[in-house]
Amino acid sequence: MTFQTVSTNKSYGGVQGVYRHASQATGTDMVFSVYVPLHPDGTKLPVVWYLSGLTCTHANVTEKGEFRKACAELGLIFVAPDTSPRGPDVPGDANNAYDFGLGAGFYVDATEAPFARNYRMWSYVTDELPKLVAENFPVDPKRQSIMGHSMGGHGALTVALRNPHRYRAASAFAPIVAPSQVPWGIKALTGYLGPNKDNWRNHDTVALIEDGAKYSGFLVDVGEADNFLKEQLKPELLQAACTKANIPLTLRRQPGYDHSYYFISTFMSDHLQWHAERLKG
Amino acid sequence: MTFQTVSTNKSYGGVQGVYRHASQATGTDMVFSVYVPLHPDGTKLPVVWYLSGLTCTHANVTEKGEFRKACAELGLIFVAPDTSPRGPDVPGDANNAYDFGLGAGFYVDATEAPFARNYRMWSYVTDELPKLVAENFPVDPKRQSIMGHSMGGHGALTVALRNPHRYRAASAFAPIVAPSQVPWGIKALTGYLGPNKDNWRNHDTVALIEDGAKYSGFLVDVGEADNFLKEQLKPELLQAACTKANIPLTLRRQPGYDHSYYFISTFMSDHLQWHAERLKG
Repeated sequence: MTFQTVSTNKSYGGVQGVYRHASQATGTDMVFSVYVPLHPDGTKLPVVWYLSGLTCTHANVTEKGEFRKACAELGLIFVAPDTSPRGPDVPGDANNAYDFGLGAGFYVDATEAPFARNYRMWSYVTDELPKLVAENFPVDPKRQSIMGHSMGGHGALTVALRNPHRYRAASAFAPIVAPSQVPWGIKALTGYLGPNKDNWRNHDTVALIEDGAKYSGFLVDVGEADNFLKEQLKPELLQAACTKANIPLTLRRQPGYDHSYYFISTFMSDHLQWHAERLKG
Repeated sequence: MTFQTVSTNKSYGGVQGVYRHASQATGTDMVFSVYVPLHPDGTKLPVVWYLSGLTCTHANVTEKGEFRKACAELGLIFVAPDTSPRGPDVPGDANNAYDFGLGAGFYVDATEAPFARNYRMWSYVTDELPKLVAENFPVDPKRQSIMGHSMGGHGALTVALRNPHRYRAASAFAPIVAPSQVPWGIKALTGYLGPNKDNWRNHDTVALIEDGAKYSGFLVDVGEADNFLKEQLKPELLQAACTKANIPLTLRRQPGYDHSYYFISTFMSDHLQWHAERLKG
């Protein structure tokens, strides 16, 4: 598998790169970013995957996430994929909505026409891109973890619950935890997976936990001034499910914080510290 | 003087705001950002002014500068103005160049038609905006300092040299130090101030020092992989002038770093620490 380098910039002693490749999973070119901290030649580093939210590309967290200082100090590689396939031939939503289609892949493999051909973000982020990254960057595949924001928090938690041995840590900023029960999720899962809600459970954090998925614990930050908290995020549903299933959940409700990268960047180093502790050795 | 709030977001415990006001200096609406860290009610804080480079607005450093963590820890207010007047009635450059006109005010009060009416960024950043900020934010006007990037580094150094008692510290990332001697500067100063080079010396760091301006010292970082280093920035001219004038200069040549915010963000906390030490008490 090959890729092109779009840009590289030295930052905090390491290299922030942006890369493009032809994805087999999505049938499109895909762009992703990788930060590699300064490290001794020949060593392999743990890698943190970051899944972004609605409307985002790799660029939002890469420019605004303020993760490089902590990654440099903790010796973590940081990978940020795009949130959907893109291109003139990729079907979007007929209404050009921000919450479905382009920029809103929801980290599923779509089964419904016309989306099934390209919208295969589950396979992309859990299979194709990890292989590409492992082949081309100094990554230790045995030390991976995953985090995300909003729709990407949904992605990170579902990916971790279904691959608990591959991802040693999982955390989220303002995640969608029960897409089957909230407007953003119902719209997306209906569109990509069809109306049968049984087919949604593998892509719903709360449903996965109800169905018996286990994990070593989650760190979740939500802002109490987040406009989406009550209608779309509903962290109380995750809290109830984790309590019932005995999954340790560190849920922090941050007073005054909203849904933006001003919130994410504030707590990014806490999350990376959490990941680093679980990626040691 | 009144202004409108465009947005506020909690970040690192403080508030990142963006504001708009009708500027008398430029005859246009102007947008600026202010970060105010968490602080005890009734206290006044030192303020760091950040002047941006070519093509930038307030937004570049606000989103990519990674200054909030250090400002929160050090108790510094951080203000970022725009780099030029903007609007449908503001003359730009006939060639729509990135280095003259909109986004490229060069922190001078233009004397040449058609720019003299709006391009009054010197008055804006040294007089009008400081008054507006002092009236509306918890700023201690006796504890101000200034920094900038590229064209904004030029702005910061010239403002400091001409107002050494008002700005207790001055630093720059990749500054244009001798605009009279480099293509960007010659183009801009000719366009805004006319062809008589005698009128440029007040807006040229090296010339100001040659003409006797004094300052307590500068911190300057430049990236050795900066594409503009040799033709436009020429830090060696600043070094020679400071040596001759006995102005302490901490000039750091950072191997591998370029002209981008990936460079700036890496060293932002060093600069804010430098400012904080000089703004104490």
